Amino acid sequence: MPAEIIDGRAVAKRLQAEIGEHVKDFVASAGAAPGLGVVLVGDDPASAMYVRMKRRACERVGIHSEAHILPASATQQEVESAIRAFNCDQSIHGILVQLPMPDHIDEEAALNVVGLAKDVDGIHPVNLGLLGMRGREPSFTPATPTGVMILINETGAQIEGAEAVVIGRSNIVGLPVALMLANANATVTICHSRTRDLAKVVKRADILVAAVGRAEYVQGDWLKPGAVVIDVGSNSVPAPESEKGYRYVGDVDFEAARSVAGHITKVPGGVGPMTITMLLANTLKAAQRSLAVAS
Amino acid sequence: MPAEIIDGRAVAKRLQAEIGEHVKDFVASAGAAPGLGVVLVGDDPASAMYVRMKRRACERVGIHSEAHILPASATQQEVESAIRAFNCDQSIHGILVQLPMPDHIDEEAALNVVGLAKDVDGIHPVNLGLLGMRGREPSFTPATPTGVMILINETGAQIEGAEAVVIGRSNIVGLPVALMLANANATVTICHSRTRDLAKVVKRADILVAAVGRAEYVQGDWLKPGAVVIDVGSNSVPAPESEKGYRYVGDVDFEAARSVAGHITKVPGGVGPMTITMLLANTLKAAQRSLAVAS
Repeated sequence: MPAEIIDGRAVAKRLQAEIGEHVKDFVASAGAAPGLGVVLVGDDPASAMYVRMKRRACERVGIHSEAHILPASATQQEVESAIRAFNCDQSIHGILVQLPMPDHIDEEAALNVVGLAKDVDGIHPVNLGLLGMRGREPSFTPATPTGVMILINETGAQIEGAEAVVIGRSNIVGLPVALMLANANATVTICHSRTRDLAKVVKRADILVAAVGRAEYVQGDWLKPGAVVIDVGSNSVPAPESEKGYRYVGDVDFEAARSVAGHITKVPGGVGPMTITMLLANTLKAAQRSLAVAS
Repeated sequence: MPAEIIDGRAVAKRLQAEIGEHVKDFVASAGAAPGLGVVLVGDDPASAMYVRMKRRACERVGIHSEAHILPASATQQEVESAIRAFNCDQSIHGILVQLPMPDHIDEEAALNVVGLAKDVDGIHPVNLGLLGMRGREPSFTPATPTGVMILINETGAQIEGAEAVVIGRSNIVGLPVALMLANANATVTICHSRTRDLAKVVKRADILVAAVGRAEYVQGDWLKPGAVVIDVGSNSVPAPESEKGYRYVGDVDFEAARSVAGHITKVPGGVGPMTITMLLANTLKAAQRSLAVAS
C-alpha cells in the first residue's frame, strides 16, 4: 500500500482560513490590521519571489504588509536602520528579514536588531535557546519547524516515545525541529554530513525529517516501513521536458519512498505552504499580544 | 580487560594549575585578580557546601571571590539587586547564581539579570541558543558540559562521526552536552524518561553521557563494548557501613559497566571536579576579555 500523502497545501489552506477569521476579530477590536514588515536587500530573483509570495499570503488573510527594499549596495547601517524603523512602527507587529543578504552585510548583527516582540521568524538566538530549554517558552517558534510539527501531528502519529531522526542541523530548520521533537518527547537523533552510515540511522526512524538540501538524497530502502517522512528540501533539478527547464524535488526520493513510508509529504506542496502560513500565524499572535499589552 | 578510568580529578588538577599560571599573568597585567561573584539565597546545606568548594577552588588558583549571601526570606527584588551589584562591580568578572533558589524566587527572571559578559555559567538562554547555532559562539560555554567534552577528548576517542547518546535533557547538562557533541560532528541521540527501550538506544553509543539523576540506572549490559562512558550523575544512596551513612553513586552501575566500557568516569572524581574547573576557566576568560576591552 503506498504511503498516504500529507497534503501541506490543504493543511495550509485550512489554517490560513482560520487565521483570516482571527484577523477579522483583531481588526474589529483594534481598528487596524496586524502588520508584517519585510526587509529585502538586493535583487536576488528567488528572494524577490519569496517576498512577493509572502505579500500575497498576507493579503489573502487580511494582514497588512510593508516592505523596505534596499539596493544590493546598502550599508550595514542602512539595513539595520530599516529594521529599527519597523521596530518602532506601531502598525508593524512582526518583522521578517529576507535571507540571504549580500555578502558584505553581517547577517548576525542585522538579525540581532529585530526586537524580540516582533521576531516572528523565531530565529533570534535567545528564542532558539528558550525553544530548547525545559520550562521556557520562546516568544515565537520558527516558521518552518512549526509547520513540520503540525504536518506530523496531522498524520495522527504519536510523537511521544517515537524515534525521530532529523537530517540536517541548520539554525532555521534542522536544529529547531530537533529541539521541538525532543520537547514533544520523541527520542531524537540529529544527523548531518559527518554521520557514518546514514542509511542505518534513518532505518530507525518512526519519524524522519529531511532538511539537508540535497536532491533526492534519502533513498526509499533506507526507510523504516510505515515511517512518517517530512521532506523539507526544495532543490531545483534540470527538467528539459518542462517549459522552465527545471523542476523542484525534495531531499527524499519520493517515488521510491512512498512505497515504504506510511505518510509522506510531496515537494512542492508539502512543507513550503506551511512555512508561510506559520509566518502569518506568528504575525497574528504578535498583533494579539500588542493589543493585550495595550489594554 | 576492564575499562580505563577517566580520572577527572587528575585532569582538573592539571587544568587548574594551568589556570593558576594564567591568573598570575593576568594579575601582572591588570594589577588585580580575576573576580567571581557568587549569589547564594537561603541556607540549603548542599548549596552552602558547593559555594564553599567554589571559594576554595578560587583561592587555589588565585581568583578573588565574593559572595552575596541572602536569607531564605529574601525578595525577588533583593536577589536581583545582589546580581545587579555584581554586574556593576568592576572587580567582579564572572557571576554565579547558586541554584536552586527558594520556591518563591523566579529563577528565570533572576538569571536573566546576569549580564552576558559575566555569565560564566553559560546558562543564559541566548548563550544556549548561540551554543546550538552553526557559525555562532556563546559568550561562555556551560561549565559541566564543557568539562564533559574535555573528558571525552582526554580518552583520545574520535567524536566526529561517532554515535553519541545523551540520557537526560536538562537545561544545564543534557541539552547543552547534546548540542556540543553535535557541533563536534557526532551523530547525537537525545534520550529521556519517555524514551522507549533505552537499553537498545544506549547499545548504539560509541560515546554515552548519562545525566539523568537516577542512581546506578544504566546497566552494564546496555553498553556497547568499548564505549566511552561519562557519568554526570551524583546521587546519594544509603551506606550504613560508612560514617556519614550515605555515599554518592553515579547514573551508571559502575562495577558492571567497567567490564564492558572502553573508558569510564568514576563518581565521585569524574565530572564533578571538572565543573568547578570550567567555572574558574570561564571567570579567567571573562577577566581577560575585560582587559582586552579596556586596553
